[in-house]
Amino acid sequence: MQFCSQCGGRVTLLVPEGDSLPRHVCQACGTIHYQNPKLVVGCLAEWREQILLCRRSIDPRYGLWTLPAGFMENGESTSQAALRETLEEACARVELGPAFCLINVPHINQVHLFYRARLLDTRFAAGAETLETALFSEDALPWHELAFQSVTMCLRAYFADRLSGRFTFHEDSIVRAPRAANGRPRD
Amino acid sequence: MQFCSQCGGRVTLLVPEGDSLPRHVCQACGTIHYQNPKLVVGCLAEWREQILLCRRSIDPRYGLWTLPAGFMENGESTSQAALRETLEEACARVELGPAFCLINVPHINQVHLFYRARLLDTRFAAGAETLETALFSEDALPWHELAFQSVTMCLRAYFADRLSGRFTFHEDSIVRAPRAANGRPRD
Repeated sequence: MQFCSQCGGRVTLLVPEGDSLPRHVCQACGTIHYQNPKLVVGCLAEWREQILLCRRSIDPRYGLWTLPAGFMENGESTSQAALRETLEEACARVELGPAFCLINVPHINQVHLFYRARLLDTRFAAGAETLETALFSEDALPWHELAFQSVTMCLRAYFADRLSGRFTFHEDSIVRAPRAANGRPRD
Repeated sequence: MQFCSQCGGRVTLLVPEGDSLPRHVCQACGTIHYQNPKLVVGCLAEWREQILLCRRSIDPRYGLWTLPAGFMENGESTSQAALRETLEEACARVELGPAFCLINVPHINQVHLFYRARLLDTRFAAGAETLETALFSEDALPWHELAFQSVTMCLRAYFADRLSGRFTFHEDSIVRAPRAANGRPRD
């Protein structure tokens, strides 16, 4: 961030009075521009013991498999976001179940939230950001071709709960060392 | 938003190609500025059947009671945010329990998330945004002086679960008609 979105003035990174963290503050109009984590919301949708996955047609992770999910929009609820993303990415209509799995991804300022859901029919199809959609049973799941660690964690939690016969709400974090300026992981 | 935070150029509200919602797009450099909901995270901290509340020393809702909570920061997890806000607002140290209650507040583009927690000691005190802190039993709770509807909903869910002897994860939404430009609720 270089400029103020309100007045177009230059912003400076400084700790405002009474605050404890550096913020982008406009030198002209004084507006403080806060930056906060984003929610990524999606569905783990079942159809007769199988799970709906989407193969990504966009970067990052082009060609790898994911649960239908995406950035929550202003003006909607988390459950509305989950339904919308499932429709957009997999053209799939679901009955939403409970929130199932929350994964923090602090090194990229994201929180991922997945709902359990039940497909209403099998008329799903690839959306604009998807190469193909398919149902997978647990033993056929492409574990080594999953796009995101949060998807792997959510699916593992789901199959563990299903085996135990009791679904609970899960929370976890992905902890990764920040990368140095040369792109290599720090020690 | 009037100006591009990257280059200082003018932004226009339009639906980018392949998108379905209007975004602020820079007419000079083409950057698309997405705006997304923010997470507010806090604690429902117990001490021997009592709950810790904070009386707000800032607007909005100056003088009313709330659970310690605030905007999640970049680079932290939801549980780290809950611990930090509880320390900042109530100078209280807690042992965090599970995520307990998620309340969508779509008309102000927020998602509120409260954890259950256990106070480690009673050496709490008013932080910078708090007039006073106090412990309340269920029958002494200032129900008519609570600052936010999400706090009321979380506390109601907590006491209902405590009565039933079984705590589960709760999710709800606050649905409010958008206000017209004159500040009055729409029909």
